[in-house]
Amino acid sequence: MKNTFGNVLTLTVFGESHGEAIGVVIDGISPGIPVSEGSIKQALLKRAPFGKISTARCEKDDFRILSGVYNGHTTGTPLCIVIPNKDVRSEHYEKNKDLLRPGHADYTSLCKYGGFADPRGGGHSSGRITAAICAAGAVIEDALRAKGIKIGTHISRLAGIDDVKFCDTERDIETLNSKRFAVLDDGRAAEMTERIEKAAEKGDSVGGILETAVSGIPAGIGEPFFDSLESMISHAVFSIGGIKGIEFGAGFAVADMLGSQCNDPFRIENGTVYTVTNNNGGINGGISNGMPIVFRCAVKPTPSVSIEQDTVEIAKRENSVISVIGRHDPCIVHRARAVVDAITAFCVADMLCLRYGNNYLAKDIT
Amino acid sequence: MKNTFGNVLTLTVFGESHGEAIGVVIDGISPGIPVSEGSIKQALLKRAPFGKISTARCEKDDFRILSGVYNGHTTGTPLCIVIPNKDVRSEHYEKNKDLLRPGHADYTSLCKYGGFADPRGGGHSSGRITAAICAAGAVIEDALRAKGIKIGTHISRLAGIDDVKFCDTERDIETLNSKRFAVLDDGRAAEMTERIEKAAEKGDSVGGILETAVSGIPAGIGEPFFDSLESMISHAVFSIGGIKGIEFGAGFAVADMLGSQCNDPFRIENGTVYTVTNNNGGINGGISNGMPIVFRCAVKPTPSVSIEQDTVEIAKRENSVISVIGRHDPCIVHRARAVVDAITAFCVADMLCLRYGNNYLAKDIT
Amino acid sequence: MKNTFGNVLTLTVFGESHGEAIGVVIDGISPGIPVSEGSIKQALLKRAPFGKISTARCEKDDFRILSGVYNGHTTGTPLCIVIPNKDVRSEHYEKNKDLLRPGHADYTSLCKYGGFADPRGGGHSSGRITAAICAAGAVIEDALRAKGIKIGTHISRLAGIDDVKFCDTERDIETLNSKRFAVLDDGRAAEMTERIEKAAEKGDSVGGILETAVSGIPAGIGEPFFDSLESMISHAVFSIGGIKGIEFGAGFAVADMLGSQCNDPFRIENGTVYTVTNNNGGINGGISNGMPIVFRCAVKPTPSVSIEQDTVEIAKRENSVISVIGRHDPCIVHRARAVVDAITAFCVADMLCLRYGNNYLAKDIT
Amino acid sequence: MKNTFGNVLTLTVFGESHGEAIGVVIDGISPGIPVSEGSIKQALLKRAPFGKISTARCEKDDFRILSGVYNGHTTGTPLCIVIPNKDVRSEHYEKNKDLLRPGHADYTSLCKYGGFADPRGGGHSSGRITAAICAAGAVIEDALRAKGIKIGTHISRLAGIDDVKFCDTERDIETLNSKRFAVLDDGRAAEMTERIEKAAEKGDSVGGILETAVSGIPAGIGEPFFDSLESMISHAVFSIGGIKGIEFGAGFAVADMLGSQCNDPFRIENGTVYTVTNNNGGINGGISNGMPIVFRCAVKPTPSVSIEQDTVEIAKRENSVISVIGRHDPCIVHRARAVVDAITAFCVADMLCLRYGNNYLAKDIT
Repeated sequence: MKNTFGNVLTLTVFGESHGEAIGVVIDGISPGIPVSEGSIKQALLKRAPFGKISTARCEKDDFRILSGVYNGHTTGTPLCIVIPNKDVRSEHYEKNKDLLRPGHADYTSLCKYGGFADPRGGGHSSGRITAAICAAGAVIEDALRAKGIKIGTHISRLAGIDDVKFCDTERDIETLNSKRFAVLDDGRAAEMTERIEKAAEKGDSVGGILETAVSGIPAGIGEPFFDSLESMISHAVFSIGGIKGIEFGAGFAVADMLGSQCNDPFRIENGTVYTVTNNNGGINGGISNGMPIVFRCAVKPTPSVSIEQDTVEIAKRENSVISVIGRHDPCIVHRARAVVDAITAFCVADMLCLRYGNNYLAKDIT
Repeated sequence: MKNTFGNVLTLTVFGESHGEAIGVVIDGISPGIPVSEGSIKQALLKRAPFGKISTARCEKDDFRILSGVYNGHTTGTPLCIVIPNKDVRSEHYEKNKDLLRPGHADYTSLCKYGGFADPRGGGHSSGRITAAICAAGAVIEDALRAKGIKIGTHISRLAGIDDVKFCDTERDIETLNSKRFAVLDDGRAAEMTERIEKAAEKGDSVGGILETAVSGIPAGIGEPFFDSLESMISHAVFSIGGIKGIEFGAGFAVADMLGSQCNDPFRIENGTVYTVTNNNGGINGGISNGMPIVFRCAVKPTPSVSIEQDTVEIAKRENSVISVIGRHDPCIVHRARAVVDAITAFCVADMLCLRYGNNYLAKDIT
Repeated sequence: MKNTFGNVLTLTVFGESHGEAIGVVIDGISPGIPVSEGSIKQALLKRAPFGKISTARCEKDDFRILSGVYNGHTTGTPLCIVIPNKDVRSEHYEKNKDLLRPGHADYTSLCKYGGFADPRGGGHSSGRITAAICAAGAVIEDALRAKGIKIGTHISRLAGIDDVKFCDTERDIETLNSKRFAVLDDGRAAEMTERIEKAAEKGDSVGGILETAVSGIPAGIGEPFFDSLESMISHAVFSIGGIKGIEFGAGFAVADMLGSQCNDPFRIENGTVYTVTNNNGGINGGISNGMPIVFRCAVKPTPSVSIEQDTVEIAKRENSVISVIGRHDPCIVHRARAVVDAITAFCVADMLCLRYGNNYLAKDIT
Repeated sequence: MKNTFGNVLTLTVFGESHGEAIGVVIDGISPGIPVSEGSIKQALLKRAPFGKISTARCEKDDFRILSGVYNGHTTGTPLCIVIPNKDVRSEHYEKNKDLLRPGHADYTSLCKYGGFADPRGGGHSSGRITAAICAAGAVIEDALRAKGIKIGTHISRLAGIDDVKFCDTERDIETLNSKRFAVLDDGRAAEMTERIEKAAEKGDSVGGILETAVSGIPAGIGEPFFDSLESMISHAVFSIGGIKGIEFGAGFAVADMLGSQCNDPFRIENGTVYTVTNNNGGINGGISNGMPIVFRCAVKPTPSVSIEQDTVEIAKRENSVISVIGRHDPCIVHRARAVVDAITAFCVADMLCLRYGNNYLAKDIT
């Protein structure tokens, strides 16, 4: 297990889906950052299930800050946030516990943990853990915002329906952060929702693509050879369950471009260098170039489907079939967006603190 | 800068394109691994330019092992390999040194290193550094092979031409490792080469997609939450210059799948669990499931093109144009394949050593 | 801040003396280790204040395991233990908050955290945090014991009174672990206690030396050049507040020895290699040699003394005097012993897991 | 093996005593630091053997900088320095290779590396490796000096003879750095040298104590809980072979002090806070308080003695005797001083870069 991420600013997660609580420890955080409980609630709400398109499990996500905050500001010492698990029903997991759920971590957990992992609700492999990351991310996102750095993610594609592209990145980010179903063109939301519901009715699930933008990041951030911005962001993003691909800027489309098309021409205006296009997603040689950082991740359809699938009954070592019953999301794309925002915030903040010092996020006090 | 990668088995790179030498230090390596100079030469050859489709710079890549090998075996102490730079011509770089080359790290290096970076040949940002990684990778790939784990990469797509898919993974890997231009269907090689040459004639460049497979990896490897196999592999692969996307298994195609299509059904045969399809690329919940690990990366067209492009003359802070002259590759896809193999070998070996102990790669001696 | 320690097995601490709770996250822990709440209670009791020789603050240390344990065994996922703070009285700290307490971290915290640190009870700098480490250490100590590795610490010297030396290391360790005031010769306990009480009566405090032994550790453990056993153990031990020195084996006495005296001669008996003396403390070249690892740390007298001392009133930037009032320990030597045991257990377990794999502590399940 | 040290600024060492070369990679170094070959030579000279009190092996220590320096300044990319081994005679090692040298790492290496370690001259366990650290340290020490931070070490005690104490720390450091045999009172040098020679004549060796001071370090540096200044410095220092103890400030003497004696009273003068005494060695709660950091390490007598000692002939698994022949130092205390300076410089620089950003050492360019 490796449940800590980051060089200077680190994030440690713990907890199981149906255990007592999940939580997170942020370490290396600058002192003096205002901590808003409202922002944390908002971030948890962005990730929370809602309507018919999500799980019926209803966690109030009442978090508690156990340490690291005093008089409403970070102290500079480890900030621990705990979120108790309350609406826990483990009976479905008990019933099927010997049937490996396809697309899930049941089999790989068994191989890794030798049968000692908590099976209830997927245990530590559950998406539930990401709630803690969102809570923590809210603190960091606020701090970055105070430095002029903003992060936003929209549902670029869901079950075959495309959203429009980012246009005015900074304004779009603001718009997205006020929405629970994050599309730039609200017209697409209904269609996407409909597809989710249709899949859900059939006991099936759908996937999609999230597109994230980070605006306001200064040029010169990133630590190649190995800790390029793409390396750090992809490392973080792939820790989210269900992500199977990531691409920066033009991404896979670069494969079919000529160099003369793919290169982003530099221009200077009023002393500011910028690029005319952004095929490199704001990153050259692993280092930020001052343009918005833009990337997309592919989110697979939730593996929990009630449609019958072939599988193995592992205790008997026999072939069998499974129909996964329980309170599952027919789609997690719209919820995962909050997690991508949070984890991206950590990556970016960590790289900034490495470059400018571990008090950077509250530099006024230096 | 972060030029060390890995948890237990680490890789540290150093060097500049036109400096005295490039090199690598492998640390945490198990003692008793046979070191074959032939394998290292072979790996360097896989990466070396050849024919009209590569740079005219001709480095013999005469490497020297400075430490960590005794009587033909690893000692268990740091293994340092150095490759001197010989065929160095820096005059082109001198001429253009104030013109930011679009798509390159010139501008971002300037922002990060304040003008102190070695500008000749791209300095430490140059693809030249990856030769050292290939040399080191050869040692690890041999050790993995002795454990039944094999890694191979083919050019899945180049300038719009597709290769066929992996079929018999293990055999395909063997085939690929004997080829300098790594396609599964040799018939596609000519067409791809032609496209490279055509672009080169026009002073342009082309990109492509590499597909990598790892066979023989046991189930249970990977360290989620943060060091999932996808996280570690993507972290490593994005350190290679020019990679702009990565996807595992079905990758971005999962976005349009239903859960019932995307899930890989489990079956058991003669006591061995396997999946019927491999949409998850051999990884569930960040942990290997025993199937081949399969991923693809998008490689952008080389940014060095002699076609005139808009740019900025940074010393004068004025707009200008540039035509990048020098000995450049019109395509690096076919060469990058060797680097992806090497760096993947490190990731996999590191995760295995974390799981089974740092003497794993030479377990007979334990 | 750096609140995570370890390579493979990591320990993350959080919390403030008068905050809501303190706690610890153990990550990278092998699955299948039996977790005994009794052992945790016992470890907390070893560290708990008692009698007239300790603080009057009485924390019941009711811990809660939030994650990582299922059916009485570690799951292999992060194990979080939280200990709420209950008997909190902050009024003394409020009164003196602008007077820098000599020997404490008040001034250095101010410089580091810019005034945002929680001042109550020393905040995160308080020895209170070490309760969480003891709780976590109990789990690891049990796991090590199951592998034949035992750790024990005695008060080698306190306020000028010496205990006897280790004699039969393994048996002595057992004896020590059953004592609250850990001396090998109980006759010394009374005298030591008396000196503590005498200092306390005068509003003063006393220091001492702790000696720790680890028996049963196999030869070949340690990761030089930089992660030698001495490096790792000293790193961990110096994180405990109040430790100002550490020495291994003969320690500082080696300075006056001849090589022929200091070297430990090797002998072999029934196929087992051992050394006749143990001046090197069980470590040669940073690696264990199979003999007990033995080290001593110097613990300074508690800096909280009510005797008036010169200091600075920092808000006014004026010289002043302070008499530290509150519920303080006149000596922490006898309590710190539990923390040294716990943190040593982590070091040793981490090095073993690095060598033998991250499932080592529960190897039966591999 | 763990041959990399540091959080932001890292040091990686490689090489064997009788291999082709030893070397070091410094990563995370700020760009724009002037690199003086003269300083590197000077540092190597401080460590070099001389006179009758050292080994007869005479390495010219001709170093080569392979990367990371351009136009006389650091580029910000990895700086590799290589020192070839030239005066190598391995015949003595061949003769005795099955006899475990007491006090050396022969037996522990065998247990760790399974017989694959390079036995010649102690291989990677040899003190020879520290030459590379001194070369690298010279670059960092120069950079720190430009920030007003100076490091110096004197032979506090050697074979029972004491040097005087630090008096005017900053001036004393300057004096020490100009001496090959680093004592504050030159009168003691002759006596110490005589004792070394006397031991050498008898085929024996002597040990001693080094005392190091760091002046000019700002208050607020250090990263507790785990990366306290004491933790980081001790971690680094214990990686040097032969160090068996370290103590900060009053060190082990704190054990016998009362709190009212041990506490360093704060005073303020012209707006500057300082302490009247320095029993805490410039560190409170793991963080620098602005006073000089002062620590002492115990260096054991060189284990290579020609006096006959009991040992084991490991291949035969039989008891035997050994007389270690070869070109050995009868004392390494006076040479180790250069290594302690170098490695302390790294620790301090790393902590400063963590606090103020990775360009701190050349902050003018930010």
